[in-house]
Amino acid sequence: MSSSTDRVTAAVMIIGDEILSGRTQDTNLNVIAKYLGAHGVDLAEARVVGDIKDEIIAALNVLRGRYDYVITTGGIGPTHDDITADCVAEAFGVALYEHPEIIAMLKARPGLELNAARRRMARIPEGGELVRNPVSGPPGFMIGNVFVLAGVPSIMRGMLEDVGHRLRGGAVVVSRNVRVDGTGEGVLAEPLEAIAKAHPDLSLGSYPFFGPGGYGSNLVIRGRDPAEVEATAAELVAALTALGVANITADEPGAPA
Amino acid sequence: MSSSTDRVTAAVMIIGDEILSGRTQDTNLNVIAKYLGAHGVDLAEARVVGDIKDEIIAALNVLRGRYDYVITTGGIGPTHDDITADCVAEAFGVALYEHPEIIAMLKARPGLELNAARRRMARIPEGGELVRNPVSGPPGFMIGNVFVLAGVPSIMRGMLEDVGHRLRGGAVVVSRNVRVDGTGEGVLAEPLEAIAKAHPDLSLGSYPFFGPGGYGSNLVIRGRDPAEVEATAAELVAALTALGVANITADEPGAPA
Repeated sequence: MSSSTDRVTAAVMIIGDEILSGRTQDTNLNVIAKYLGAHGVDLAEARVVGDIKDEIIAALNVLRGRYDYVITTGGIGPTHDDITADCVAEAFGVALYEHPEIIAMLKARPGLELNAARRRMARIPEGGELVRNPVSGPPGFMIGNVFVLAGVPSIMRGMLEDVGHRLRGGAVVVSRNVRVDGTGEGVLAEPLEAIAKAHPDLSLGSYPFFGPGGYGSNLVIRGRDPAEVEATAAELVAALTALGVANITADEPGAPA
Repeated sequence: MSSSTDRVTAAVMIIGDEILSGRTQDTNLNVIAKYLGAHGVDLAEARVVGDIKDEIIAALNVLRGRYDYVITTGGIGPTHDDITADCVAEAFGVALYEHPEIIAMLKARPGLELNAARRRMARIPEGGELVRNPVSGPPGFMIGNVFVLAGVPSIMRGMLEDVGHRLRGGAVVVSRNVRVDGTGEGVLAEPLEAIAKAHPDLSLGSYPFFGPGGYGSNLVIRGRDPAEVEATAAELVAALTALGVANITADEPGAPA
Protein backbone atom coordinates (compact mmCIF):
# COMPACT_ATOMS: atom_id res chain seq x y z
CA MET A 1 0.00 0.00 0.00
CA SER A 2 1.33 3.39 -0.95
CA SER A 3 1.53 6.34 1.39
CA SER A 4 0.65 9.89 0.47
CA THR A 5 4.34 10.86 0.39
CA ASP A 6 4.52 8.94 -2.89
CA ARG A 7 2.55 11.68 -4.54
CA VAL A 8 4.33 13.14 -7.56
CA THR A 9 2.65 16.22 -9.03
CA ALA A 10 2.63 18.13 -12.28
CA ALA A 11 1.07 21.21 -13.83
CA VAL A 12 0.24 21.86 -17.46
CA MET A 13 0.66 25.28 -19.01
CA ILE A 14 -1.11 25.80 -22.32
CA ILE A 15 0.35 28.77 -24.16
CA GLY A 16 -1.53 30.45 -26.95
CA ASP A 17 -3.94 33.26 -27.81
CA GLU A 18 -5.85 30.85 -30.05
CA ILE A 19 -7.13 28.87 -27.05
CA LEU A 20 -8.24 31.99 -25.16
CA SER A 21 -9.92 33.53 -28.22
CA GLY A 22 -11.94 30.36 -28.72
CA ARG A 23 -10.48 29.80 -32.17
CA THR A 24 -9.02 26.45 -31.09
CA GLN A 25 -10.50 23.82 -28.77
CA ASP A 26 -7.67 22.49 -26.63
CA THR A 27 -7.34 18.73 -26.54
CA ASN A 28 -3.76 18.51 -25.26
CA LEU A 29 -4.68 18.87 -21.59
CA ASN A 30 -6.79 15.73 -21.62
CA VAL A 31 -4.11 13.71 -23.43
CA ILE A 32 -1.42 14.86 -21.00
CA ALA A 33 -3.65 14.23 -17.96
CA LYS A 34 -4.18 10.61 -18.98
CA TYR A 35 -0.51 10.16 -19.87
CA LEU A 36 0.62 11.48 -16.49
CA GLY A 37 -1.94 9.32 -14.68
CA ALA A 38 -0.58 6.23 -16.40
CA HIS A 39 2.90 7.22 -15.17
CA GLY A 40 1.74 7.71 -11.59
CA VAL A 41 1.98 11.49 -11.73
CA ASP A 42 -0.95 13.60 -10.49
CA LEU A 43 -1.91 16.54 -12.67
CA ALA A 44 -2.63 19.07 -9.94
CA GLU A 45 -3.32 22.26 -11.88
CA ALA A 46 -3.49 23.64 -15.40
CA ARG A 47 -3.32 27.16 -16.76
CA VAL A 48 -3.98 28.68 -20.13
CA VAL A 49 -2.01 31.86 -20.82
CA GLY A 50 -1.80 34.06 -23.89
CA ASP A 51 1.27 34.90 -25.97
CA ILE A 52 2.44 37.53 -23.49
CA LYS A 53 6.01 37.27 -22.25
CA ASP A 54 5.61 38.55 -18.70
CA GLU A 55 2.54 36.40 -18.07
CA ILE A 56 4.20 33.25 -19.38
CA ILE A 57 7.29 33.81 -17.24
CA ALA A 58 5.30 34.62 -14.10
CA ALA A 59 3.04 31.58 -14.44
CA LEU A 60 5.95 29.26 -15.24
CA ASN A 61 7.91 30.41 -12.21
CA VAL A 62 4.95 29.81 -9.90
CA LEU A 63 4.16 26.38 -11.32
CA ARG A 64 7.72 25.04 -11.49
CA GLY A 65 8.21 25.99 -7.86
CA ARG A 66 4.96 24.45 -6.71
CA TYR A 67 4.92 21.10 -8.55
CA ASP A 68 7.40 18.34 -9.37
CA TYR A 69 6.99 18.85 -13.11
CA VAL A 70 5.58 21.38 -15.55
CA ILE A 71 4.61 20.54 -19.11
CA THR A 72 4.06 23.43 -21.50
CA THR A 73 2.39 23.23 -24.90
CA GLY A 74 2.54 25.74 -27.72
CA GLY A 75 4.64 28.64 -28.88
CA ILE A 76 7.73 26.81 -30.17
CA GLY A 77 7.29 27.35 -33.92
CA PRO A 78 9.19 29.78 -36.15
CA THR A 79 6.85 32.77 -36.11
CA HIS A 80 7.15 36.00 -34.12
CA ASP A 81 4.36 34.95 -31.74
CA ASP A 82 6.28 31.78 -30.78
CA ILE A 83 7.99 33.05 -27.66
CA THR A 84 7.96 30.06 -25.33
CA ALA A 85 11.69 29.27 -25.62
CA ASP A 86 12.58 32.90 -24.89
CA CYS A 87 10.27 32.94 -21.87
CA VAL A 88 11.54 29.65 -20.44
CA ALA A 89 15.17 30.78 -20.82
CA GLU A 90 14.37 34.05 -19.07
CA ALA A 91 12.51 32.26 -16.28
CA PHE A 92 15.58 30.09 -15.66
CA GLY A 93 17.96 33.04 -16.09
CA VAL A 94 19.93 31.43 -18.89
CA ALA A 95 20.61 32.24 -22.53
CA LEU A 96 19.29 30.47 -25.61
CA TYR A 97 21.71 28.88 -28.05
CA GLU A 98 21.31 27.19 -31.41
CA HIS A 99 21.49 23.47 -30.76
CA PRO A 100 23.88 21.91 -33.30
CA GLU A 101 21.77 18.76 -33.68
CA ILE A 102 18.69 20.76 -34.61
CA ILE A 103 20.66 22.94 -37.03
CA ALA A 104 22.06 19.77 -38.65
CA MET A 105 18.55 18.30 -38.86
CA LEU A 106 17.19 21.42 -40.53
CA LYS A 107 20.15 21.56 -42.95
CA ALA A 108 19.58 17.94 -43.92
CA ARG A 109 16.06 18.62 -45.18
CA PRO A 110 16.08 18.85 -48.96
CA GLY A 111 15.01 22.17 -50.43
CA LEU A 112 14.67 23.90 -47.06
CA GLU A 113 16.41 27.25 -46.75
CA LEU A 114 17.82 27.75 -43.24
CA ASN A 115 16.47 31.30 -42.80
CA ALA A 116 16.19 33.34 -39.61
CA ALA A 117 12.67 32.08 -38.83
CA ARG A 118 13.69 28.42 -39.03
CA ARG A 119 16.83 29.08 -36.96
CA ARG A 120 14.50 30.31 -34.18
CA MET A 121 13.25 26.75 -33.81
CA ALA A 122 16.80 25.51 -33.19
CA ARG A 123 17.20 27.58 -30.03
CA ILE A 124 17.10 25.87 -26.65
CA PRO A 125 18.08 27.23 -23.23
CA GLU A 126 21.58 26.54 -21.90
CA GLY A 127 21.42 23.47 -19.71
CA GLY A 128 18.41 22.09 -21.58
CA GLU A 129 18.03 18.68 -23.22
CA LEU A 130 16.11 17.80 -26.37
CA VAL A 131 12.70 16.13 -26.31
CA ARG A 132 12.49 14.04 -29.46
CA ASN A 133 9.90 14.91 -32.10
CA PRO A 134 9.02 11.76 -34.03
CA VAL A 135 6.34 13.49 -36.09
CA SER A 136 7.51 16.56 -37.93
CA GLY A 137 10.04 19.33 -37.52
CA PRO A 138 12.35 20.28 -34.69
CA PRO A 139 12.29 18.76 -31.19
CA GLY A 140 11.00 20.20 -27.94
CA PHE A 141 13.23 20.52 -24.92
CA MET A 142 13.39 20.11 -21.18
CA ILE A 143 15.20 22.21 -18.61
CA GLY A 144 15.08 21.61 -14.88
CA ASN A 145 11.61 20.22 -14.16
CA VAL A 146 10.00 21.83 -17.22
CA PHE A 147 9.12 20.05 -20.46
CA VAL A 148 8.45 22.31 -23.45
CA LEU A 149 6.31 20.65 -26.12
CA ALA A 150 4.62 21.70 -29.35
CA GLY A 151 1.01 22.88 -29.45
CA VAL A 152 -0.10 20.99 -32.57
CA PRO A 153 -1.79 17.93 -31.03
CA SER A 154 -0.25 15.26 -33.26
CA ILE A 155 3.26 16.63 -32.63
CA MET A 156 2.58 17.11 -28.92
CA ARG A 157 1.53 13.48 -28.57
CA GLY A 158 4.67 12.35 -30.36
CA MET A 159 6.91 14.41 -28.09
CA LEU A 160 5.12 13.15 -24.99
CA GLU A 161 6.52 9.68 -25.70
CA ASP A 162 9.97 11.07 -24.91
CA VAL A 163 8.79 12.53 -21.58
CA GLY A 164 7.53 9.53 -19.57
CA HIS A 165 10.88 7.80 -19.04
CA ARG A 166 12.21 11.00 -17.46
CA LEU A 167 9.43 11.22 -14.87
CA ARG A 168 9.84 9.95 -11.35
CA GLY A 169 6.52 8.16 -11.16
CA GLY A 170 4.48 7.86 -8.01
CA ALA A 171 2.09 5.02 -7.33
CA VAL A 172 -0.32 4.79 -10.22
CA VAL A 173 -3.87 5.87 -9.43
CA VAL A 174 -6.51 3.28 -10.17
CA SER A 175 -10.23 3.88 -10.35
CA ARG A 176 -13.58 2.12 -10.33
CA ASN A 177 -16.71 3.57 -11.84
CA VAL A 178 -20.13 2.81 -10.41
CA ARG A 179 -22.77 3.95 -12.86
CA VAL A 180 -26.30 4.56 -11.69
CA ASP A 181 -29.08 5.03 -14.22
CA GLY A 182 -32.37 6.72 -13.37
CA THR A 183 -31.39 8.02 -9.92
CA GLY A 184 -30.28 11.61 -9.39
CA GLU A 185 -27.43 12.97 -7.31
CA GLY A 186 -29.94 14.24 -4.77
CA VAL A 187 -30.45 10.62 -3.66
CA LEU A 188 -26.88 9.43 -4.20
CA ALA A 189 -25.16 12.26 -2.33
CA GLU A 190 -25.71 11.00 1.21
CA PRO A 191 -24.40 7.44 0.92
CA LEU A 192 -21.54 8.69 -1.27
CA GLU A 193 -20.48 11.25 1.31
CA ALA A 194 -20.62 8.71 4.15
CA ILE A 195 -18.30 6.39 2.25
CA ALA A 196 -16.00 9.25 1.24
CA LYS A 197 -15.63 10.23 4.91
CA ALA A 198 -14.79 6.64 5.86
CA HIS A 199 -12.01 6.52 3.22
CA PRO A 200 -10.04 9.75 3.44
CA ASP A 201 -7.21 8.35 1.28
CA LEU A 202 -9.55 7.93 -1.67
CA SER A 203 -11.12 10.50 -3.95
CA LEU A 204 -14.83 9.94 -4.56
CA GLY A 205 -16.62 12.01 -7.16
CA SER A 206 -20.05 12.12 -8.73
CA TYR A 207 -20.40 13.07 -12.40
CA PRO A 208 -24.04 13.39 -13.39
CA PHE A 209 -25.27 12.90 -16.92
CA PHE A 210 -28.47 14.06 -18.60
CA GLY A 211 -29.55 13.34 -22.11
CA PRO A 212 -32.15 11.95 -24.45
CA GLY A 213 -31.15 8.46 -23.26
CA GLY A 214 -31.93 9.21 -19.64
CA TYR A 215 -30.17 10.59 -16.59
CA GLY A 216 -28.06 9.32 -13.75
CA SER A 217 -24.53 9.65 -12.43
CA ASN A 218 -21.12 8.05 -12.62
CA LEU A 219 -19.69 7.63 -9.15
CA VAL A 220 -15.92 7.40 -9.45
CA ILE A 221 -13.59 6.05 -6.77
CA ARG A 222 -9.91 6.84 -7.25
CA GLY A 223 -6.93 5.91 -5.16
CA ARG A 224 -3.45 4.42 -5.05
CA ASP A 225 -4.33 1.21 -3.24
CA PRO A 226 -6.14 -1.07 -5.71
CA ALA A 227 -7.53 -3.31 -2.96
CA GLU A 228 -9.04 -0.37 -1.09
CA VAL A 229 -10.54 1.07 -4.28
CA GLU A 230 -12.01 -2.33 -5.12
CA ALA A 231 -13.45 -2.89 -1.65
CA THR A 232 -14.90 0.61 -1.54
CA ALA A 233 -16.67 0.13 -4.87
CA ALA A 234 -18.30 -3.00 -3.46
CA GLU A 235 -19.22 -1.10 -0.28
CA LEU A 236 -20.81 1.67 -2.34
CA VAL A 237 -22.83 -0.77 -4.45
CA ALA A 238 -24.06 -2.47 -1.26
CA ALA A 239 -25.02 0.85 0.35
CA LEU A 240 -26.94 2.00 -2.74
CA THR A 241 -28.69 -1.35 -3.07
CA ALA A 242 -29.71 -1.21 0.61
CA LEU A 243 -31.29 2.20 -0.13
CA GLY A 244 -33.39 0.69 -2.89
CA VAL A 245 -31.37 2.22 -5.76
CA ALA A 246 -31.64 0.12 -8.91
CA ASN A 247 -29.79 0.01 -12.24
CA ILE A 248 -26.30 0.03 -10.78
CA THR A 249 -23.45 -0.97 -13.11
CA ALA A 250 -19.99 -1.34 -11.59
CA ASP A 251 -17.19 -1.49 -14.13
CA GLU A 252 -14.35 -3.98 -14.05
CA PRO A 253 -11.14 -3.23 -12.15
CA GLY A 254 -8.38 -1.55 -14.10
CA ALA A 255 -10.48 0.88 -16.12
CA PRO A 256 -8.77 4.19 -16.88
CA ALA A 257 -8.73 6.56 -13.94
CA MET B 1 -11.67 53.40 -33.75
CA SER B 2 -11.47 51.92 -30.29
CA SER B 3 -8.62 52.57 -27.92
CA SER B 4 -6.95 49.98 -25.74
CA THR B 5 -8.66 51.41 -22.65
CA ASP B 6 -11.84 49.78 -23.95
CA ARG B 7 -10.40 46.39 -23.08
CA VAL B 8 -12.63 44.40 -20.75
CA THR B 9 -11.07 41.18 -19.45
CA ALA B 10 -12.19 37.92 -17.93
CA ALA B 11 -10.76 34.71 -16.56
CA VAL B 12 -12.29 31.25 -16.54
CA MET B 13 -11.81 28.90 -13.62
CA ILE B 14 -12.67 25.28 -14.33
CA ILE B 15 -13.23 23.39 -11.08
CA GLY B 16 -13.08 19.62 -10.96
CA ASP B 17 -10.84 16.62 -10.35
CA GLU B 18 -12.40 14.93 -13.38
CA ILE B 19 -10.71 17.39 -15.77
CA LEU B 20 -7.29 17.01 -14.14
CA SER B 21 -7.51 13.21 -13.98
CA GLY B 22 -8.24 13.09 -17.71
CA ARG B 23 -11.60 11.43 -17.13
CA THR B 24 -13.43 14.33 -18.77
CA GLN B 25 -12.41 16.43 -21.76
CA ASP B 26 -13.32 20.02 -20.98
CA THR B 27 -15.34 21.78 -23.67
CA ASN B 28 -16.70 24.63 -21.55
CA LEU B 29 -13.62 26.84 -21.93
CA ASN B 30 -14.00 27.02 -25.68
CA VAL B 31 -17.72 27.81 -25.47
CA ILE B 32 -17.13 30.55 -22.90
CA ALA B 33 -14.20 32.00 -24.87
CA LYS B 34 -16.36 32.43 -27.97
CA TYR B 35 -19.28 33.78 -25.94
CA LEU B 36 -17.09 36.40 -24.25
CA GLY B 37 -15.53 37.37 -27.59
CA ALA B 38 -18.97 37.98 -29.04
CA HIS B 39 -19.69 40.26 -26.06
CA GLY B 40 -16.47 42.22 -26.51
CA VAL B 41 -14.80 40.71 -23.44
CA ASP B 42 -11.25 39.34 -23.75
CA LEU B 43 -10.62 36.00 -22.08
CA ALA B 44 -7.18 36.69 -20.65
CA GLU B 45 -6.44 33.56 -18.63
CA ALA B 46 -7.92 30.24 -17.63
CA ARG B 47 -7.15 27.87 -14.80
CA VAL B 48 -8.17 24.33 -14.00
CA VAL B 49 -8.16 23.50 -10.29
CA GLY B 50 -9.14 20.37 -8.42
CA ASP B 51 -11.83 19.97 -5.77
CA ILE B 52 -9.59 21.39 -3.03
CA LYS B 53 -10.98 24.23 -0.96
CA ASP B 54 -7.81 26.22 -0.31
CA GLU B 55 -6.73 26.04 -3.94
CA ILE B 56 -10.11 27.15 -5.26
CA ILE B 57 -10.23 30.11 -2.88
CA ALA B 58 -6.64 31.17 -3.59
CA ALA B 59 -7.08 31.02 -7.37
CA LEU B 60 -10.44 32.81 -7.25
CA ASN B 61 -9.03 35.64 -5.16
CA VAL B 62 -6.14 36.16 -7.57
CA LEU B 63 -8.33 36.08 -10.66
CA ARG B 64 -11.17 38.27 -9.39
CA GLY B 65 -8.62 40.91 -8.40
CA ARG B 66 -6.78 40.78 -11.71
CA TYR B 67 -9.63 40.71 -14.26
CA ASP B 68 -12.97 42.46 -14.77
CA TYR B 69 -14.88 39.18 -14.56
CA VAL B 70 -14.38 35.58 -13.49
CA ILE B 71 -16.55 32.72 -14.70
CA THR B 72 -16.32 29.44 -12.81
CA THR B 73 -17.65 26.09 -13.99
CA GLY B 74 -18.27 22.99 -11.92
CA GLY B 75 -18.79 21.98 -8.33
CA ILE B 76 -22.33 23.27 -7.72
CA GLY B 77 -24.22 19.96 -7.52
CA PRO B 78 -25.56 18.25 -4.39
CA THR B 79 -22.67 15.88 -3.61
CA HIS B 80 -19.93 16.26 -0.99
CA ASP B 81 -17.32 17.10 -3.66
CA ASP B 82 -19.39 20.07 -4.85
CA ILE B 83 -17.73 22.80 -2.81
CA THR B 84 -17.72 25.77 -5.18
CA ALA B 85 -20.46 27.75 -3.37
CA ASP B 86 -18.68 27.27 -0.02
CA CYS B 87 -15.37 28.42 -1.53
CA VAL B 88 -16.84 31.48 -3.26
CA ALA B 89 -18.61 32.55 -0.05
CA GLU B 90 -15.39 32.16 1.92
CA ALA B 91 -13.39 34.09 -0.72
CA PHE B 92 -15.87 36.98 -0.40
CA GLY B 93 -16.02 36.67 3.37
CA VAL B 94 -19.78 36.15 3.48
CA ALA B 95 -22.13 33.37 4.60
CA LEU B 96 -24.24 31.09 2.45
CA TYR B 97 -28.00 31.07 2.84
CA GLU B 98 -30.79 29.00 1.34
CA HIS B 99 -32.34 31.09 -1.40
CA PRO B 100 -36.13 30.98 -1.04
CA GLU B 101 -36.73 30.91 -4.80
CA ILE B 102 -34.56 27.83 -5.20
CA ILE B 103 -36.17 26.09 -2.25
CA ALA B 104 -39.60 26.85 -3.74
CA MET B 105 -38.45 25.52 -7.11
CA LEU B 106 -37.19 22.29 -5.57
CA LYS B 107 -40.38 21.88 -3.52
CA ALA B 108 -42.49 22.32 -6.64
CA ARG B 109 -40.93 19.31 -8.35
CA PRO B 110 -43.25 16.33 -8.12
CA GLY B 111 -41.89 13.33 -6.25
CA LEU B 112 -38.70 15.04 -5.19
CA GLU B 113 -37.82 14.79 -1.51
CA LEU B 114 -36.13 17.96 -0.28
CA ASN B 115 -33.29 16.21 1.55
CA ALA B 116 -30.03 17.67 2.88
CA ALA B 117 -28.13 17.01 -0.35
CA ARG B 118 -30.68 18.84 -2.48
CA ARG B 119 -30.83 21.73 0.00
CA ARG B 120 -27.07 22.18 -0.61
CA MET B 121 -27.91 23.29 -4.15
CA ALA B 122 -30.17 26.05 -2.84
CA ARG B 123 -27.32 27.82 -1.05
CA ILE B 124 -25.95 31.05 -2.46
CA PRO B 125 -23.63 33.61 -0.85
CA GLU B 126 -25.14 36.65 0.84
CA GLY B 127 -25.17 39.51 -1.65
CA GLY B 128 -25.34 37.14 -4.59
CA GLU B 129 -27.88 37.07 -7.41
CA LEU B 130 -29.24 34.06 -9.27
CA VAL B 131 -28.07 33.05 -12.74
CA ARG B 132 -31.02 31.40 -14.44
CA ASN B 133 -30.80 27.72 -15.38
CA PRO B 134 -33.11 27.08 -18.33
CA VAL B 135 -32.03 23.45 -18.70
CA SER B 136 -32.35 21.40 -15.55
CA GLY B 137 -32.15 21.87 -11.84
CA PRO B 138 -31.20 24.81 -9.65
CA PRO B 139 -29.66 28.05 -10.93
CA GLY B 140 -26.10 29.31 -10.69
CA PHE B 141 -25.28 32.62 -9.08
CA MET B 142 -23.16 35.72 -9.35
CA ILE B 143 -21.50 37.72 -6.62
CA GLY B 144 -19.31 40.76 -7.22
CA ASN B 145 -17.56 40.15 -10.52
CA VAL B 146 -17.78 36.35 -10.28
CA PHE B 147 -20.28 34.15 -12.14
CA VAL B 148 -20.69 30.61 -10.80
CA LEU B 149 -22.00 28.17 -13.41
CA ALA B 150 -22.57 24.43 -13.65
CA GLY B 151 -19.96 22.06 -15.06
CA VAL B 152 -22.28 19.89 -17.16
CA PRO B 153 -21.83 21.46 -20.63
CA SER B 154 -25.51 21.61 -21.64
CA ILE B 155 -26.44 23.30 -18.35
CA MET B 156 -23.41 25.60 -18.45
CA ARG B 157 -24.40 26.81 -21.93
CA GLY B 158 -27.93 27.48 -20.76
CA MET B 159 -26.74 29.49 -17.76
CA LEU B 160 -24.33 31.47 -19.94
CA GLU B 161 -27.33 33.05 -21.68
CA ASP B 162 -28.12 34.82 -18.41
CA VAL B 163 -24.56 36.18 -18.11
CA GLY B 164 -24.04 38.30 -21.23
CA HIS B 165 -26.49 41.08 -20.42
CA ARG B 166 -24.65 41.66 -17.15
CA LEU B 167 -21.25 42.15 -18.80
CA ARG B 168 -19.88 45.59 -19.56
CA GLY B 169 -18.74 44.78 -23.10
CA GLY B 170 -15.66 46.28 -24.69
CA ALA B 171 -15.28 46.76 -28.41
CA VAL B 172 -15.87 43.43 -30.09
CA VAL B 173 -12.78 41.81 -31.56
CA VAL B 174 -13.04 40.94 -35.23
CA SER B 175 -10.71 38.68 -37.15
CA ARG B 176 -9.66 37.72 -40.64
CA ASN B 177 -8.09 34.42 -41.52
CA VAL B 178 -5.57 34.10 -44.36
CA ARG B 179 -5.06 30.43 -45.11
CA VAL B 180 -1.95 29.32 -46.95
CA ASP B 181 -1.73 25.80 -48.33
CA GLY B 182 1.55 24.13 -49.17
CA THR B 183 3.87 26.72 -47.64
CA GLY B 184 5.38 26.25 -44.16
CA GLU B 185 5.74 28.74 -41.33
CA GLY B 186 9.47 28.92 -42.04
CA VAL B 187 8.66 30.95 -45.15
CA LEU B 188 5.65 32.82 -43.75
CA ALA B 189 7.27 33.97 -40.51
CA GLU B 190 9.26 36.91 -41.90
CA PRO B 191 6.50 38.77 -43.77
CA LEU B 192 4.08 38.03 -40.92
CA GLU B 193 6.42 39.51 -38.34
CA ALA B 194 7.04 42.63 -40.43
CA ILE B 195 3.31 43.27 -40.70
CA ALA B 196 2.78 42.51 -36.98
CA LYS B 197 5.40 45.11 -36.07
CA ALA B 198 3.73 47.70 -38.31
CA HIS B 199 0.37 47.13 -36.56
CA PRO B 200 1.02 47.00 -32.82
CA ASP B 201 -2.73 47.32 -32.03
CA LEU B 202 -3.48 44.04 -33.79
CA SER B 203 -2.74 40.48 -32.79
CA LEU B 204 -1.27 38.39 -35.60
CA GLY B 205 -0.87 34.66 -35.11
CA SER B 206 0.15 31.70 -37.21
CA TYR B 207 -1.54 28.33 -36.64
CA PRO B 208 0.08 25.61 -38.72
CA PHE B 209 -1.71 22.47 -39.81
CA PHE B 210 -0.37 19.12 -40.95
CA GLY B 211 -2.36 16.17 -42.13
CA PRO B 212 -3.05 13.65 -44.81
CA GLY B 213 -4.63 16.46 -46.85
CA GLY B 214 -1.49 18.56 -46.85
CA TYR B 215 0.17 21.22 -44.73
CA GLY B 216 0.13 24.95 -44.40
CA SER B 217 -0.88 27.60 -41.91
CA ASN B 218 -3.79 29.81 -40.93
CA LEU B 219 -2.60 33.36 -40.39
CA VAL B 220 -5.08 35.11 -38.14
CA ILE B 221 -5.37 38.87 -37.74
CA ARG B 222 -7.42 40.04 -34.75
CA GLY B 223 -8.26 43.52 -33.58
CA ARG B 224 -10.94 45.93 -32.51
CA ASP B 225 -10.89 48.17 -35.59
CA PRO B 226 -12.59 46.28 -38.42
CA ALA B 227 -11.15 48.58 -41.10
CA GLU B 228 -7.58 48.07 -39.85
CA VAL B 229 -8.05 44.30 -39.62
CA GLU B 230 -9.45 44.27 -43.16
CA ALA B 231 -6.67 46.44 -44.61
CA THR B 232 -4.00 44.39 -42.85
CA ALA B 233 -5.37 41.14 -44.27
CA ALA B 234 -5.09 42.66 -47.75
CA GLU B 235 -1.56 43.86 -46.95
CA LEU B 236 -0.57 40.38 -45.82
CA VAL B 237 -1.98 38.73 -48.93
CA ALA B 238 -0.09 41.25 -51.08
CA ALA B 239 3.19 40.67 -49.21
CA LEU B 240 2.88 36.89 -49.50
CA THR B 241 1.99 37.10 -53.18
CA ALA B 242 5.01 39.32 -53.81
CA LEU B 243 7.17 36.62 -52.19
CA GLY B 244 5.86 34.05 -54.66
CA VAL B 245 3.61 32.26 -52.13
CA ALA B 246 0.68 30.55 -53.87
CA ASN B 247 -2.58 28.97 -52.67
CA ILE B 248 -3.65 31.84 -50.44
CA THR B 249 -7.30 31.90 -49.34
CA ALA B 250 -8.50 34.94 -47.41
CA ASP B 251 -11.83 34.44 -45.66
CA GLU B 252 -14.68 36.91 -45.75
CA PRO B 253 -14.96 39.65 -43.13
CA GLY B 254 -16.98 38.86 -40.05
CA ALA B 255 -15.81 35.31 -39.47
CA PRO B 256 -15.63 34.30 -35.81
CA ALA B 257 -12.56 35.63 -34.04
